Amino acid sequence: MKSVTVYDIAKEANVSVATVSRVLNNTAPVKKETRERVKELIDKYQFQPNALARSLIKKETGMIGIILPDITNPFFPEVLSGFDQEARKKGYTYFLCDTVSANADDAEQYVRESQYLNVLAEKQVDGIVMLGGRIDLAKPGKELVEEVVDVGKRLPVLLINGRIPGAGLPAVASDERFGAELATTHLIELGHRKIALVGGYRHMSNTVQRTAGFTKTMERYGLEVRKEWLLHDGFSVDSGTAFMDRLLRLPDRPTAVFCLNDLVAIGVLKAAVKAGLKVPQDMSIIGYDDIPFASYSIPELTTVSLRAHDLGRTAAEILHKMITKSKVPKTTLIKPELVIRESTGAPAPH
Amino acid sequence: MKSVTVYDIAKEANVSVATVSRVLNNTAPVKKETRERVKELIDKYQFQPNALARSLIKKETGMIGIILPDITNPFFPEVLSGFDQEARKKGYTYFLCDTVSANADDAEQYVRESQYLNVLAEKQVDGIVMLGGRIDLAKPGKELVEEVVDVGKRLPVLLINGRIPGAGLPAVASDERFGAELATTHLIELGHRKIALVGGYRHMSNTVQRTAGFTKTMERYGLEVRKEWLLHDGFSVDSGTAFMDRLLRLPDRPTAVFCLNDLVAIGVLKAAVKAGLKVPQDMSIIGYDDIPFASYSIPELTTVSLRAHDLGRTAAEILHKMITKSKVPKTTLIKPELVIRESTGAPAPH
Repeated sequence: MKSVTVYDIAKEANVSVATVSRVLNNTAPVKKETRERVKELIDKYQFQPNALARSLIKKETGMIGIILPDITNPFFPEVLSGFDQEARKKGYTYFLCDTVSANADDAEQYVRESQYLNVLAEKQVDGIVMLGGRIDLAKPGKELVEEVVDVGKRLPVLLINGRIPGAGLPAVASDERFGAELATTHLIELGHRKIALVGGYRHMSNTVQRTAGFTKTMERYGLEVRKEWLLHDGFSVDSGTAFMDRLLRLPDRPTAVFCLNDLVAIGVLKAAVKAGLKVPQDMSIIGYDDIPFASYSIPELTTVSLRAHDLGRTAAEILHKMITKSKVPKTTLIKPELVIRESTGAPAPH
Repeated sequence: MKSVTVYDIAKEANVSVATVSRVLNNTAPVKKETRERVKELIDKYQFQPNALARSLIKKETGMIGIILPDITNPFFPEVLSGFDQEARKKGYTYFLCDTVSANADDAEQYVRESQYLNVLAEKQVDGIVMLGGRIDLAKPGKELVEEVVDVGKRLPVLLINGRIPGAGLPAVASDERFGAELATTHLIELGHRKIALVGGYRHMSNTVQRTAGFTKTMERYGLEVRKEWLLHDGFSVDSGTAFMDRLLRLPDRPTAVFCLNDLVAIGVLKAAVKAGLKVPQDMSIIGYDDIPFASYSIPELTTVSLRAHDLGRTAAEILHKMITKSKVPKTTLIKPELVIRESTGAPAPH
């Protein structure tokens, strides 16, 4: 039998869910007659309010603050949905704090992070999760670090896919090097020898790590990492188009392109198709992240799944342990997975 | 000259932004010497903390709660980014409350909406914005309505792209009928006479209104609305593929497909290409929403822009007026715009 929900109780008592909630929480006056009708039904069904309802009753905050840089980047909603699914089971509600700056001015973004860190700490959330922004920096400034360390002393702070050097804050992170090795090995095993790497930002640690994974794998197979095939500074579709336009103008072109995220891969794909190339026959393209769009494109993108949902779900588990004072590992690595679709294949024979 | 920010003050004082914030807000003890150094700099630059910082100082909540059904639907992040941009200027921070149910069980989603409504009201946010969920229903149940009305009596509640019948709550909404008329007229003017409409859910008011706009326009041009070309119940890429597979099996096929959102259009496009059709030469496809991916696909999707960013921005303006007790219109309609890209063209001559 399906267990009885607040909704069922409300329906049978012919009152709103808010009213049932008020009876449970005793937060606002409810007419005596109504209150008794609701209480009778609660007894009748031996109704157990779920974890979220319980946390409301107990008047703990049950609130988690999540600070992230840009909700329109499709990677973050995927992480959030995994986080939410697990957090909800454990009775938490989350608040999202988006630090994106309209001017893409980093300093402004970090100020906003600072403001949210303070607001959340003041609101007495049970814990804070940080994604992106300063924790993505290869070398964050001293003040940016100290501030997080300060808040981390007052309440649990968990980092997803990033780090604050020397802060000792627990992190759930994708194994970036391993992911880049997967992508590079896949291309090499298909027969590619001339491989470009495009996308990312040199000041971001994910770019540094993925590029290291690529370079290491190329070297292991004795393949040359060509400087003119290594193009950074961009994570957008438009930057992908620009990277590919540059590669296509070279006298000696690569036969495969490893893109440091899927948006860049979509731009690379568009530029390749526009130039009359067939993908993957004339050019193999592999992305990174596995955002939903990766399977919407024609051809569908081969990519490296960051397992964003699992990252989020694991983060919720770890943060719950931190909140309940259980021991957690300093870093929990999530292994990316290769997702082979249609945009990669053997290079054309010469 | 660029105005001085909290960040600049922190840098020059050689302290963290959190410390400057603490001095400004007086929320936590700061060493006397440090506090004086910060205060001197504040005086020196006649530093005006921005609106957000000011609201922190004044200890108003400055918080808005946004309740929405599924952050992984790319339409919502676009609305949020417009909302955030405007809200931030006015000194608000928003909290996002995602009600998505892992089981896509609507009743569960409405329970979560109820819980968030209560939590937000208790947290004394300055106002609440609702998107999706129950406010999308063509005929929401009595309890679902009453609950929102109740909360609406206690604090400002604004609806985006939806309604609560009889509640008298202000709304910012896309003119759905007009948007469907734009799409249908575009196809007819290209020369199409045989037009299918696919996607949406019959119990949702957006589907009802868009279908009405389509039907009305077809009738105005004396064109037949064929029952077997009217396929509902789905807003996903997969449902789009299924719709197109059904259309392709018909002895008499349409020459154009109007899709009730872009995800469905992407599915329709994939099925068409898989069946060997050229888009738009053999089949014109138009979407709805104008999510970012609409311009990433090959061919790029012609679609109806809901102007999600403007919807969000306008919502922030209206909610601010509600919070500051200014008069607002009951409904502010945002006119959608036709965005002609590559997936529509004249039908092939017979």
